[in-house]
Amino acid sequence: MKINGNYLNLKESYLFSDIAKKTAAYKTAHPEADIIRLGIGDVTLPLCQAVVDALHTAADEMGKKETFRGYGPEQGYDFLKDAIRDYYKSEDAVSLEADEVFISDGAKSDLGNILDILSRDNTVLVPDPVYPVYVDTNIMDDRRIIYMSGNAENGFLPLPDTSVDADIIYICSPNNPTGAAYDKAGLKKWVDYARAKNALILFDAAYESFITTPGLVRSIYEIEGARECAIEFCSFSKIAGFTGTRCGWTVVPESLVYDGVKLNRLWLRRQTTKFNGVSYPVQRAAAAVFTPEGRAQIKENLDYYRHNAKTITDALDKLGIWYTGGINSPYIWLECPNDMKSWDFFDLLLTKANVVGTPGAGFGANGEGFFRLTAFGDRDRTAEAAERIVKLLG
Amino acid sequence: MKINGNYLNLKESYLFSDIAKKTAAYKTAHPEADIIRLGIGDVTLPLCQAVVDALHTAADEMGKKETFRGYGPEQGYDFLKDAIRDYYKSEDAVSLEADEVFISDGAKSDLGNILDILSRDNTVLVPDPVYPVYVDTNIMDDRRIIYMSGNAENGFLPLPDTSVDADIIYICSPNNPTGAAYDKAGLKKWVDYARAKNALILFDAAYESFITTPGLVRSIYEIEGARECAIEFCSFSKIAGFTGTRCGWTVVPESLVYDGVKLNRLWLRRQTTKFNGVSYPVQRAAAAVFTPEGRAQIKENLDYYRHNAKTITDALDKLGIWYTGGINSPYIWLECPNDMKSWDFFDLLLTKANVVGTPGAGFGANGEGFFRLTAFGDRDRTAEAAERIVKLLG
Repeated sequence: MKINGNYLNLKESYLFSDIAKKTAAYKTAHPEADIIRLGIGDVTLPLCQAVVDALHTAADEMGKKETFRGYGPEQGYDFLKDAIRDYYKSEDAVSLEADEVFISDGAKSDLGNILDILSRDNTVLVPDPVYPVYVDTNIMDDRRIIYMSGNAENGFLPLPDTSVDADIIYICSPNNPTGAAYDKAGLKKWVDYARAKNALILFDAAYESFITTPGLVRSIYEIEGARECAIEFCSFSKIAGFTGTRCGWTVVPESLVYDGVKLNRLWLRRQTTKFNGVSYPVQRAAAAVFTPEGRAQIKENLDYYRHNAKTITDALDKLGIWYTGGINSPYIWLECPNDMKSWDFFDLLLTKANVVGTPGAGFGANGEGFFRLTAFGDRDRTAEAAERIVKLLG
Repeated sequence: MKINGNYLNLKESYLFSDIAKKTAAYKTAHPEADIIRLGIGDVTLPLCQAVVDALHTAADEMGKKETFRGYGPEQGYDFLKDAIRDYYKSEDAVSLEADEVFISDGAKSDLGNILDILSRDNTVLVPDPVYPVYVDTNIMDDRRIIYMSGNAENGFLPLPDTSVDADIIYICSPNNPTGAAYDKAGLKKWVDYARAKNALILFDAAYESFITTPGLVRSIYEIEGARECAIEFCSFSKIAGFTGTRCGWTVVPESLVYDGVKLNRLWLRRQTTKFNGVSYPVQRAAAAVFTPEGRAQIKENLDYYRHNAKTITDALDKLGIWYTGGINSPYIWLECPNDMKSWDFFDLLLTKANVVGTPGAGFGANGEGFFRLTAFGDRDRTAEAAERIVKLLG
């Protein structure tokens, strides 16, 4: 029995374990230090009441013979698919068919699993800096990977280079880790490039709910031609705090055709063969996000995080530090002051301000000299961290 | 962009849609017919009270900031892994380490996803008749597939043929669709064969909770040497009616080493890269299955289904019809009377007894002439169906 040897080509990322180790070592040496963590990408506010109520109702349904649900459709229940379609219709003026929406247990699962239906003989284009999962899942399949540079000049929003040939293109907007978000003109260039190259865009929209600036794109299907070249991945994780509850969705338009085959049919076949659908109570909880009460309640939570982001960007503005994100994203991606390297700035913030963030170098070569702070923390603690940063660097 | 062309080699199974169509057509022609369905593999009893209570408690925890849970460990929470380890210890006298147990959203997902870490250049041995997912997931990867014959002579429990070389071996015991279950001696032969061939056994134990006969194997790790050659997949679906709630587990022993690499490390890498763990409330619900109250309550449900199985096998005994399963399995796999073919017997039962079952031919060539009935129905309806079958064939 032979293993998939491509796994031996994966590099282990020690980013978050190194952060944890350095922080723990500092805390041991300075037990009195009051450390504030602005490094995590996880939410901290609880599920909203509409969602909790839906979980209770579904639990009771599952406990009675008359309302019990066994196997559901692998691609998700219509009540949730319809709620998502209404969300697209009302927020983005995008119309989706019911069989174009697939309910998943989160964007991370589908971003990995989608590669099952694509040949290993494709060239993949990923941005640098990047969410490491895009790279690792393709190394596992031995696909050729090429990079496009995000940097301060292009605002970490690289545009297509027609001299480069690629088959599969990853775009995450608003971006993790940079918080940068494409506008319609920028994304249209990518759609045109993909169509010219017969390429496929894998569009990660996990952070779309943070967008408030008009003209920025929440769904790639707002762009003409995207239904012919893009799959969109989204998640309740950041919309409604589902990081531990687990639900997302993937849109595979009927009009996506490669090698004469509809990707929608292939994905349906993949999911019905290797997946058994998302937990019924979780699907009911997700549907509750889109009720009037649910939408009002998640807006409060999103506003809470947005306020944190503004607290951080106000501090950076005061200090004259360059950054992306923060406005349409829970991430603030800042240039380290005084040409410092990412890890040196990490050490400075940890030891002099007792604030923990994430070194940009951990997201790729182009992240060197940059640093990520997140808006998912507690309001008062975030304000305290911002004050300490201003005091340290001001 | 090129698709994974192996998908074009998949055959669509029309088994359950053909059954649904034939049944609907009969019902249209005979609206007065009182049809009893004994074809489905899905449970019908609701979640037990301990599980429902755990869902409620977890929903409340998720609704409060102090007890809210975001991202959990991809491989599952210790509270659930420990409960599963205790279950193995008490039921099977098998000791597992915490990092050998991986919580999943169900056996079907992991049975498909495990192939990610195995080379496409392996030969796969599957029984015929077979759960179609084993075959389809390997066709998607273009692995060479060979078959071993289950038949009336070997009681649908094929034993290894040392003249055959295989790298990956699927064993499902108690079996779907035949209900046949290996004893220790039979499974020891498979473990010895796998070790001699440097092969890997993928052991599907989804129905282990139905075993009552002493000497039959609930976990393959009861067999000496299995920790060096077998991965075990299990699920709360049939133990505790989680078909719509979605939770299972996979055991990857530390001692599984191929090409000098621990499969446990590869699987951990796969899961941390392509999966984000099972919903926290669902993991709490699953852990409640193994509390004293939970175990007493699921035993009642399992006994309910076992009683149904006995109702069916009593009828077959009365008729002198040969079958496997029913005693240690919710499935009864019977030889069609009078040398009938599977679909002819389906038509006979549907039209003359208004009972719906599953033609064995749908599970592979060796299923021709056999028929599957399930014990997951209502008690009174199952008794009524059994009476009708005796009346028809007696």
